[in-house]
Amino acid sequence: MRWPTGVAGLCFGADYHPEHWPRHIWIQDMDLMRQAGVNLVTVGSTAWSRLEPAEGEYEFDWLDDTLDLLADNDIRAILAIPTSSPPPWFGLRHPDALTVDDRGNRLGHGSRDTYCVCAPAYRSACLRLTRELATRYRHHPALSIWQVHTTYRTVCHCDHSSRSFQLWLRERHGDLATLNEAWSTAVWGQRYSDWAQITAPRATTDAPNPAQALDFRRFNSDEMLTHFGEQQTVLRQYTPHIPVTTTFEIGDDVPIDHWRWSKEVDIVSMASYPDRVDRGAEEQTAFIADLARSLAGGRPWLLKEQATGLIHTPDGPHTFEPGRLERHAMTQIARGARGVMFEQWRAPTGGATAWRSAMLPHAGPNTRLFREIRRLGDMLPGLAELDGAAVRAKVAIMWDEPSWWALTGPSAPTPHVDYLGVVRQAHRVLWRHDVLTDFTAGETDLSGYRLAIIPHLYLATETIADNLAGWVAQGGTAVITYLSGTTDHTGRIHAGGLSGVFASLIGVRGEEAYPMLPDQSVRLSNGATGRVWSEHLHLDGAETICGYRGGTLDRQPAITRHALGDGHVWYVSTQLDDTDFTDLLDAIGILPSEADPDVETVERETDDDTYRIVINHGDKPTAINATGTDLVSGKPAEGGYQFLL
Amino acid sequence: MRWPTGVAGLCFGADYHPEHWPRHIWIQDMDLMRQAGVNLVTVGSTAWSRLEPAEGEYEFDWLDDTLDLLADNDIRAILAIPTSSPPPWFGLRHPDALTVDDRGNRLGHGSRDTYCVCAPAYRSACLRLTRELATRYRHHPALSIWQVHTTYRTVCHCDHSSRSFQLWLRERHGDLATLNEAWSTAVWGQRYSDWAQITAPRATTDAPNPAQALDFRRFNSDEMLTHFGEQQTVLRQYTPHIPVTTTFEIGDDVPIDHWRWSKEVDIVSMASYPDRVDRGAEEQTAFIADLARSLAGGRPWLLKEQATGLIHTPDGPHTFEPGRLERHAMTQIARGARGVMFEQWRAPTGGATAWRSAMLPHAGPNTRLFREIRRLGDMLPGLAELDGAAVRAKVAIMWDEPSWWALTGPSAPTPHVDYLGVVRQAHRVLWRHDVLTDFTAGETDLSGYRLAIIPHLYLATETIADNLAGWVAQGGTAVITYLSGTTDHTGRIHAGGLSGVFASLIGVRGEEAYPMLPDQSVRLSNGATGRVWSEHLHLDGAETICGYRGGTLDRQPAITRHALGDGHVWYVSTQLDDTDFTDLLDAIGILPSEADPDVETVERETDDDTYRIVINHGDKPTAINATGTDLVSGKPAEGGYQFLL
Amino acid sequence: MRWPTGVAGLCFGADYHPEHWPRHIWIQDMDLMRQAGVNLVTVGSTAWSRLEPAEGEYEFDWLDDTLDLLADNDIRAILAIPTSSPPPWFGLRHPDALTVDDRGNRLGHGSRDTYCVCAPAYRSACLRLTRELATRYRHHPALSIWQVHTTYRTVCHCDHSSRSFQLWLRERHGDLATLNEAWSTAVWGQRYSDWAQITAPRATTDAPNPAQALDFRRFNSDEMLTHFGEQQTVLRQYTPHIPVTTTFEIGDDVPIDHWRWSKEVDIVSMASYPDRVDRGAEEQTAFIADLARSLAGGRPWLLKEQATGLIHTPDGPHTFEPGRLERHAMTQIARGARGVMFEQWRAPTGGATAWRSAMLPHAGPNTRLFREIRRLGDMLPGLAELDGAAVRAKVAIMWDEPSWWALTGPSAPTPHVDYLGVVRQAHRVLWRHDVLTDFTAGETDLSGYRLAIIPHLYLATETIADNLAGWVAQGGTAVITYLSGTTDHTGRIHAGGLSGVFASLIGVRGEEAYPMLPDQSVRLSNGATGRVWSEHLHLDGAETICGYRGGTLDRQPAITRHALGDGHVWYVSTQLDDTDFTDLLDAIGILPSEADPDVETVERETDDDTYRIVINHGDKPTAINATGTDLVSGKPAEGGYQFLL
Repeated sequence: MRWPTGVAGLCFGADYHPEHWPRHIWIQDMDLMRQAGVNLVTVGSTAWSRLEPAEGEYEFDWLDDTLDLLADNDIRAILAIPTSSPPPWFGLRHPDALTVDDRGNRLGHGSRDTYCVCAPAYRSACLRLTRELATRYRHHPALSIWQVHTTYRTVCHCDHSSRSFQLWLRERHGDLATLNEAWSTAVWGQRYSDWAQITAPRATTDAPNPAQALDFRRFNSDEMLTHFGEQQTVLRQYTPHIPVTTTFEIGDDVPIDHWRWSKEVDIVSMASYPDRVDRGAEEQTAFIADLARSLAGGRPWLLKEQATGLIHTPDGPHTFEPGRLERHAMTQIARGARGVMFEQWRAPTGGATAWRSAMLPHAGPNTRLFREIRRLGDMLPGLAELDGAAVRAKVAIMWDEPSWWALTGPSAPTPHVDYLGVVRQAHRVLWRHDVLTDFTAGETDLSGYRLAIIPHLYLATETIADNLAGWVAQGGTAVITYLSGTTDHTGRIHAGGLSGVFASLIGVRGEEAYPMLPDQSVRLSNGATGRVWSEHLHLDGAETICGYRGGTLDRQPAITRHALGDGHVWYVSTQLDDTDFTDLLDAIGILPSEADPDVETVERETDDDTYRIVINHGDKPTAINATGTDLVSGKPAEGGYQFLL
Repeated sequence: MRWPTGVAGLCFGADYHPEHWPRHIWIQDMDLMRQAGVNLVTVGSTAWSRLEPAEGEYEFDWLDDTLDLLADNDIRAILAIPTSSPPPWFGLRHPDALTVDDRGNRLGHGSRDTYCVCAPAYRSACLRLTRELATRYRHHPALSIWQVHTTYRTVCHCDHSSRSFQLWLRERHGDLATLNEAWSTAVWGQRYSDWAQITAPRATTDAPNPAQALDFRRFNSDEMLTHFGEQQTVLRQYTPHIPVTTTFEIGDDVPIDHWRWSKEVDIVSMASYPDRVDRGAEEQTAFIADLARSLAGGRPWLLKEQATGLIHTPDGPHTFEPGRLERHAMTQIARGARGVMFEQWRAPTGGATAWRSAMLPHAGPNTRLFREIRRLGDMLPGLAELDGAAVRAKVAIMWDEPSWWALTGPSAPTPHVDYLGVVRQAHRVLWRHDVLTDFTAGETDLSGYRLAIIPHLYLATETIADNLAGWVAQGGTAVITYLSGTTDHTGRIHAGGLSGVFASLIGVRGEEAYPMLPDQSVRLSNGATGRVWSEHLHLDGAETICGYRGGTLDRQPAITRHALGDGHVWYVSTQLDDTDFTDLLDAIGILPSEADPDVETVERETDDDTYRIVINHGDKPTAINATGTDLVSGKPAEGGYQFLL
Repeated sequence: MRWPTGVAGLCFGADYHPEHWPRHIWIQDMDLMRQAGVNLVTVGSTAWSRLEPAEGEYEFDWLDDTLDLLADNDIRAILAIPTSSPPPWFGLRHPDALTVDDRGNRLGHGSRDTYCVCAPAYRSACLRLTRELATRYRHHPALSIWQVHTTYRTVCHCDHSSRSFQLWLRERHGDLATLNEAWSTAVWGQRYSDWAQITAPRATTDAPNPAQALDFRRFNSDEMLTHFGEQQTVLRQYTPHIPVTTTFEIGDDVPIDHWRWSKEVDIVSMASYPDRVDRGAEEQTAFIADLARSLAGGRPWLLKEQATGLIHTPDGPHTFEPGRLERHAMTQIARGARGVMFEQWRAPTGGATAWRSAMLPHAGPNTRLFREIRRLGDMLPGLAELDGAAVRAKVAIMWDEPSWWALTGPSAPTPHVDYLGVVRQAHRVLWRHDVLTDFTAGETDLSGYRLAIIPHLYLATETIADNLAGWVAQGGTAVITYLSGTTDHTGRIHAGGLSGVFASLIGVRGEEAYPMLPDQSVRLSNGATGRVWSEHLHLDGAETICGYRGGTLDRQPAITRHALGDGHVWYVSTQLDDTDFTDLLDAIGILPSEADPDVETVERETDDDTYRIVINHGDKPTAINATGTDLVSGKPAEGGYQFLL
């Protein structure tokens, strides 16, 4: 295993910004880091303007100094290529490389991510800087991992972007006739007769072309991956032994197809920022952790960035309750993280991140927060042996970002599909019952799984349908929700309507959709409530599990089950709430008979040992029956073991 | 009668897009159209990029083929001049002809309606295409009607637009002194000293000039009418016998003064897209139908575009319940439509309209929807004789789009006037009682009507006041709501305040307005509730019907009645809800003693016959007393006739 | 005293726009003004396009005429330099001087305030016009006051603005290293290496730099003050004896630091536009009046602009109830205004202000409104002697616009601090108890005050802390709310965290913040409810007054009191509602034992006399015990005096 170079045990640290502070503070930092057990920090992630204060002029002394200090203190560095924060001089000198919004307005500098990833000036400036850093630090003993960029996110609508999009489209579609067909440009008279006519989507007078929007998301994912790859190539050339990564983040505004990217990065690094203050934060933490492990192919991954003390909700910040920091870290380690790292080491006194949380808060080390950090740092070495134990899930949830994009893009079947919400719901219901899940892609071999949940796999092919059918026939159980199988990879609706290429798999033909408005719902015969969507189904091999009651679809099937070989395919044609979805999974028989809703349990195993990680999210002490060794205390544990995390 | 050329009986069809499909589908289409009874389709409406794939290069073969196929199958065509969807090459070649928004951003191609109607390049490209189509198809046997554009709607704020606006203003106002006076440019120092200083309204630093906004709406209506007229002139030159139309649509964002336009089109074609899922959809359908008939001067009109299966609400789509499609068609035919046509024939598999409804849904002909289409197609021939029977209303509602624009434009007296809502309310209350209404303009001769409702006729002249007074004096009853008569045609407030030129007509002088906030209301002495507006009235000939109770206006008149010759003028100084407005009309004596709220009835007559169209919108069968012939079944009907539509 | 030149007693009038009307109306105006007792009007405030219809061509005849008429009628004029409304020709000729928004879109003309205050063409055009007006009218007998501009408000983001900002920054920060430090540009790699890299803040890709946003607000305040000063210099040169003013307005979008400005204007002129329909309008009126008096250093000030009849709420307009106009005027005069003036004299018939209120409404002089105006005009001469009586407050509220800007700018500690709301709350609670308040700045000598409330003094220095500590030690009581003392003047967080430089003053150290979301609250041990913010406090000299109950901070201090010399410092670490804040002030002992919530009372005194102004905001008559002279009626008043305003 190539990673993490030089760090024994689990990684623990944060983004470290010596450039924010005078050097005497660095000395304090080293001391406090040692106290806290920090063994890995990310350096330089937004320091371009400090490293290259004017075009082609470099100042590396401070970074030399920092890395030396780290090495002296036995702390390793993720050395960041700070391509996400071009300096102010860059935008002034290359205004054509600044981001342009979808109305054609060139955005100003004055934040981070102020670039067009397609701009030639940006691309060459990145490569130059990467080469400088690689040359200078290739042999530095602190160097552990290269990180390119921070999170890739900025989408630009300028002419550079249009030109790169055209090239990408040529590659993808081959010729214009194919593109015109794939994009249905005959609709509303958008037939292209020259590649030059195609632009990055811009604000326009009426509804935009949904296929153009979808391909533009894909293009951005690929173009950013190319940018990543360019730096990776340089870095590998100089330091073939050092892994190269970037930070993944899951979100509406992130145009990244993580399945494609996870094949290219040497380490899956994940950012985790839950946005709910209630138990939802713990669910989201587990969700991100399971997704990261799945993207890493079940191998260890790095929790690269998270808050130490705040949940950033859409309505404002919320401060972690005591212990929450540790519990999140435990969740991540239980689910395969080879370390937990945080957004920043020391809270800055100004700038956009001054009020975001850090390992070391404004009030300094004599604080509840820093005490928790130290306690966590003390605990981690004892948990290192977990790293060798496999995390094995019996349930798979299908994850497909292009389907997400298509279903929430322009001219979707209904504006009310919440793709991420539905995937999270499936994960959440299982999480509450301590059923571990992996995430899978359409063509993943499912043979290790008992159950596969396929939420809204809108973009689908016969190949995927066959993959699922083959696995079901051998005894698998699939739960497929509405708007799956409906379109091809460009979003073109398959012949025959709603069930598309999944018709024979689910044994049902969906004739007509009855989408629901936000204030509408429908009753089901089993007492459940349906929302968002309903559809007029014709059984074609499947049997009705429950039907609609009332409304136009009264007495028609709502949830069906199709026996296929040794397995079954369930089809859910409406949106269930958590309780009803739980009942459904219970009926399938995947949920354990009892689970303490306050306690999260993950089991892992090696050939010899079984590990049970138990995390108490409730506010009361609780007891478990276990015999073995308590890895936290290092002491033997016996039946009726009392613990409180 | 010139229209519709070559179609016997009522028209039935949709927009047909052969360019979306390969030719073998067309053959299926012809067969299915015949099965459904389709006799008229609109062809080419968005096919510019297919007809002229590069500037000056034409591809007509596919359209030749389509029209031949249609003619062979005895289906006639509305041949569309697709000026609303310029091809991608057009914007690339003539970027100055793309739409500019009100902040000066040039919008991209990537949708339909991507043009500036004032751009010379656009205007000449349109004329060139029109000539090509006219030349080629002038003698084609399928050609029944020319349609120019789809719905005119796109407003542009570019320099072309400013220049055309200046020319229009010169024509309207003559000289700058007059314009400065009309626009009150002395306010906030906006006095113009050169025509070149006047621009299309652009986003600015504070409140814009309301008169400029109003004139810009009018200008757009006229400029678009000029564009329409240019194509019409060409088409008439080649095919003097073929009527020319365009599609009307009623909406906030449509800058069209339909009274002016209805004089120019050869056929009034209307789009009908209700946006409420409850009975409001039926009310809106009848409203649009009555308005279309009124715009057509009582003559037949064409329901040109509507959904077959979806109500597009602001919150998302809702699917028609079974039978709703037919009921809407019946409402339209009952109210004078010479045919019902739909948005699209066959649901496309991609593009912006993929999830909009069609006569032939994705799931094909073996569907509830297509069966309803066929049933409707079967029913229509029997109803053709209705077309000769007059639709006679005894109530008129005044309709004035410029008043709408002024009242909902910048710096209006209150932001809470809902002009369209109030007009619809008047129509709705009467519709619920099966009282048929026409819509009229300010100077329409009202002698055929018993009652005229004048909602918010904000822009008014002495001439209109005299017209109303003369008709009232002869026995008419007028109901006038607040903010009527207040300003002249440019929005300048008439001397004397709120009652303006209607003071002597309504016999009341409004001293001061007391607008209400959304959460405020006022009680009236008759138990009614007033909202949005109230005013301090002084009787000047009128008597008080009911007064305000509570608040500043306690005991002051709220609703008044002015006896004028043999008639009366009622003035309503506040916003009533449906129930209270119903009571008011009831007090006036215009409502029949009973009406089944579920059943819509329209009576029409020829010299010899009386036709009664009865539509049951309820969910239970109902019976009517009637003797005659059931036009749907063709069988004799007798008393206590049981029917369920 | 230099002001107001030539007006005996209190000023009464409005903005007068003869340019809106033909001359024969002016003659009526003079007559009606005399009837109403008008003695001062503002002329020319938006008349640039009338005064200079083309560049360098002037038309002064109408203004000569107007001023002569005014002088003949013994009415004096505030002569306005109309720099806030450049004419249409100006924008056409100098497009670079039009406002640019933060996305780089140049806004159009078509309103007022369409300029960039930094544009050289604008600056020279202003000076030219000022010189013309000063030259022509320097000796006119009507001339009483010069007013420059109306309210300064327009912020521009163009290149001129960027260049002026750079110059201002050089002056403020001296060198780039200092600026980089002050702005924390190390965060997110925004280190500037050349002044030219710094721009006016523009829309950017992620969170902007908060220090840049704050300095840009300050820059705008200073740049506008420079613009004001340029005109003032010219005017003083020609008419050293005539005071020069501009109009202050308090609002979110006004980038003016009024403490700085109040030193430069010769007269503090204030606009007062309450936006609530309930008693809030009266509270806001008193708030603005007290603030104006404070800005004027306790000297007389001018209520320069207010509505006569409308409250402009965010949801639309509300009409004044009878008497409200007079009550607001009384509130202003009671609190030191040397006159009350209104937005406009005569309601225009068109333009953006047609539906705003005026002294003379559309319905003319025979109206309730004009009768109230006349009654007010009759009343004022009797109140003139009040002007010599001092207004003495025993409570000070600290007012700091930069703290407001920083707390509501980007990346603030929480988005939910409502700075203005909290200042208003403090004022409101005291106002309800007839406790008069002044507003003070951080370094104001507080020796005359018993109590100082310091709401959210986020930007603070040791000097301010020392000033407060010194005053408290001598017996003062300070109430300091959370997020005070936290940062330096650039918004950089002081070492040690939340309590910053106030730590020793408040005797408390704030370790960690627990901001609350809008739907969250926390109970306090005294039964109060906390919102928005809470924090983990460590006592360091202070004692706990009440604590948090429940939640993470259960049993921790919430409100503390620190004995310091002869005085006390109270610290309130959460947001209280009105009732709980009232209880707090009551506990401090500043509230009188009883106060009629409907009656507002202000006492003023000269060496010889005591004046009591009593305003009844309730809807029932009320009686007061007073012996003396009723200034309104001029008659003796005795005990149990019955009055109803």
